[in-house]
Amino acid sequence: EAIRHITSANVACGWHAGDPAVMDRTVWMAKENGVAVGAHPGYPDRHGFGRRNMEISEEELRQYVIYQVGALQGFCRAHGLKLNHLKPHGALYLTSLEDERVARAVAEAAALLDAGLYLVTLAGPKGELMARIGAEAGLNVIFEAFPDRAYTPEGTLVSRKVEGAVIIDPAEVAARALMMAEEGRVIASDGSVIELEAQTLCVHGDTPDAVQLLKSIRRKLEAAQITVEAARGEVAARQ
Amino acid sequence: EAIRHITSANVACGWHAGDPAVMDRTVWMAKENGVAVGAHPGYPDRHGFGRRNMEISEEELRQYVIYQVGALQGFCRAHGLKLNHLKPHGALYLTSLEDERVARAVAEAAALLDAGLYLVTLAGPKGELMARIGAEAGLNVIFEAFPDRAYTPEGTLVSRKVEGAVIIDPAEVAARALMMAEEGRVIASDGSVIELEAQTLCVHGDTPDAVQLLKSIRRKLEAAQITVEAARGEVAARQ
Amino acid sequence: EAIRHITSANVACGWHAGDPAVMDRTVWMAKENGVAVGAHPGYPDRHGFGRRNMEISEEELRQYVIYQVGALQGFCRAHGLKLNHLKPHGALYLTSLEDERVARAVAEAAALLDAGLYLVTLAGPKGELMARIGAEAGLNVIFEAFPDRAYTPEGTLVSRKVEGAVIIDPAEVAARALMMAEEGRVIASDGSVIELEAQTLCVHGDTPDAVQLLKSIRRKLEAAQITVEAARGEVAARQ
Amino acid sequence: EAIRHITSANVACGWHAGDPAVMDRTVWMAKENGVAVGAHPGYPDRHGFGRRNMEISEEELRQYVIYQVGALQGFCRAHGLKLNHLKPHGALYLTSLEDERVARAVAEAAALLDAGLYLVTLAGPKGELMARIGAEAGLNVIFEAFPDRAYTPEGTLVSRKVEGAVIIDPAEVAARALMMAEEGRVIASDGSVIELEAQTLCVHGDTPDAVQLLKSIRRKLEAAQITVEAARGEVAARQ
Repeated sequence: EAIRHITSANVACGWHAGDPAVMDRTVWMAKENGVAVGAHPGYPDRHGFGRRNMEISEEELRQYVIYQVGALQGFCRAHGLKLNHLKPHGALYLTSLEDERVARAVAEAAALLDAGLYLVTLAGPKGELMARIGAEAGLNVIFEAFPDRAYTPEGTLVSRKVEGAVIIDPAEVAARALMMAEEGRVIASDGSVIELEAQTLCVHGDTPDAVQLLKSIRRKLEAAQITVEAARGEVAARQ
Repeated sequence: EAIRHITSANVACGWHAGDPAVMDRTVWMAKENGVAVGAHPGYPDRHGFGRRNMEISEEELRQYVIYQVGALQGFCRAHGLKLNHLKPHGALYLTSLEDERVARAVAEAAALLDAGLYLVTLAGPKGELMARIGAEAGLNVIFEAFPDRAYTPEGTLVSRKVEGAVIIDPAEVAARALMMAEEGRVIASDGSVIELEAQTLCVHGDTPDAVQLLKSIRRKLEAAQITVEAARGEVAARQ
Repeated sequence: EAIRHITSANVACGWHAGDPAVMDRTVWMAKENGVAVGAHPGYPDRHGFGRRNMEISEEELRQYVIYQVGALQGFCRAHGLKLNHLKPHGALYLTSLEDERVARAVAEAAALLDAGLYLVTLAGPKGELMARIGAEAGLNVIFEAFPDRAYTPEGTLVSRKVEGAVIIDPAEVAARALMMAEEGRVIASDGSVIELEAQTLCVHGDTPDAVQLLKSIRRKLEAAQITVEAARGEVAARQ
Repeated sequence: EAIRHITSANVACGWHAGDPAVMDRTVWMAKENGVAVGAHPGYPDRHGFGRRNMEISEEELRQYVIYQVGALQGFCRAHGLKLNHLKPHGALYLTSLEDERVARAVAEAAALLDAGLYLVTLAGPKGELMARIGAEAGLNVIFEAFPDRAYTPEGTLVSRKVEGAVIIDPAEVAARALMMAEEGRVIASDGSVIELEAQTLCVHGDTPDAVQLLKSIRRKLEAAQITVEAARGEVAARQ
């Protein structure tokens, strides 16, 4: 049901989650609902849902991203859709924010597959490395913020292992989303304010009551006259 | 080393064999050597190397082929190469010769991914079903023959479980290849003659001394003034 | 929650479903709740949840069952529990009812691992082949019936692909369970009566509202003064 | 062929390498040849052959080791053999030498499965942590040395990524083996001498000409009147 409340969807590619049947159906539903499709490649770690770090060489990572994103592009072609963006999943996302080799493997894979792909990175200071590497690879970069996740004072996401890392109250999540979209900032876990310029807002599909969150965010943004559409430079809600 | 003696290569896509590193290197070597690349998708059966039948619905099979071939097309794009053809592997190949649903799943996946892909099927009477289904899906079909495999009187390959199913003598394999290319026929295991019009000859990379076989075939064909090149209607040696 | 309403549990061993974390927790919970643990090995087919047939040789099947059941026995030893029984999952279960080679692979694997393991087969005429093969391998056999599944007039389960194959009304399921336990019979989908002598009743954990079904069955059986306990010859409710 | 020249074998358990068919055959051959069988569990990383580090919690690691070793114990029971020892593979081995949590996960899994299992660790200073953790878990510990691997001055193995990490000259390997067995020392890559008391010598089955190395070592040790037998306190050659 979530797909009716979002403007773009990140699709797992079968390595940490997902499989061809799910990929096929999700791309089809995205097409039906006018939702932009993004690739969400991850580490080869099904047991850990891609949330555990792995020591993988830059060359192998590039190959893994090409494999996964290539497979999803197959479903996009089959449904007459163009893949819109690429955003690494879980530990691959977090590591690409800090490790230049990892960021480069992801960015180069994207550029080799389609120079027109948008690369998604974290809005705020911690996303700058990935943004620079993406730009060097010739990609357009989209910055995203997470209204349902707590932020550290340094501007990264509070680890899921920490109590309170995921925010589940729809009103609070919507208020954070509005602040991100209107003011370009978020309140960190210690009360400090972080500046971030986000073009897309991400809500995790596995957050409890994700659909409620999405509706709540959307109502709030629309009440504030903010247009919600797939990220190509504008604000967007995203699964 | 085999890649220097062939004109087209069938690349496993990671489900029954292969992995992103092997796919990447093989596509790169094919590019370097001017060899045409074909996708070789198989059943999700690593333990059995894709050589065991699985009861899979037509829809799921189509999804599995899209996933695997899409991933390989990713590597082709990354290396600036166009995927040339598609040939199912092992049990998926054999079943597609007999079961219309399976043939259709493969052909439709190919057509959805790239209507210009060549679909490879068995030369001779047993390949007709697949050829018809491929044509219905709008694909060009290439017929292949196997100089290193024994044929039944009905024109299928003798099962690998049977003694003598794989022919390993280079001179014999080369003689069979020449007969296939020049006369359009092969001697079956009972001595009878089968008519087959093959545009490509396939030698398995895991046959003992595959490189010897390839060299021997190539010498024989060239001595007979037969041009060996990637299959687009002509005779070709293929891994 | 289901574990509080059953007397024995069938644990998937990581090939068609499950993983070490789930196996570990399930065995631990079974121990805590005095529930007997059974191994539920399946085909190596995660995409299809083990519900699709695969052509696997008798020798390979025996190896696959040893691997999976051996792994689960590891968790049982770690928790100081003895594995109680073995019941193949999905397509492996259905095939073992009909194909002597498959039944033998399963039974021999069980006997090699622990001659004291109970082998579970379908109560009624269709379970006789498996029962005979199990006895030949020296195993004790337990017959099970499925109160939440429709039966064909021949005494097999109606395929899940058929409408009405899974019964979800708690009252109806409980009534069927009571008839199975008290009268040793079930009404087939065409209204005919099938005789079956079941020592255990199985409810699938993935049936909607499985917990409701279990409670409903248990109340019904206990109201009829039927003792519900882990199968070692007596009637038992089982996940 | 290697199995005829060794006294104990480490068997991969299907996660980084190996599968049920290979495990079954290897245990059978070990039984036939009087070779002791050890479990060689690794990270869930088939693409990387278990040689890449993964961030896995202690609890999950313990579960992964129980699963893999339990499966191998299944084959041992099926062949009437007792599993002799446990030695983690690749990155899991190296990490267990340095990270107490990893060492404990491995040792506790072993102790839960069979308190009589021998735990194998590296001879020399770097193996002390693992030896202590193993002893705390109540296990007997065996120290092993690697005649075909270069040592750092600190007493660890030189990384495989470094030129010269693997020694392939049979005479040199045999000389190192003799020095290890007779003098309890090895010459490190910088020429310094490391003391190590090894009860077992390990040669990797995937070293080029492993069989030659094994023969050469065995001749050398026997010429020096050293008895070669499965490690239970004595010197042993091991795959």
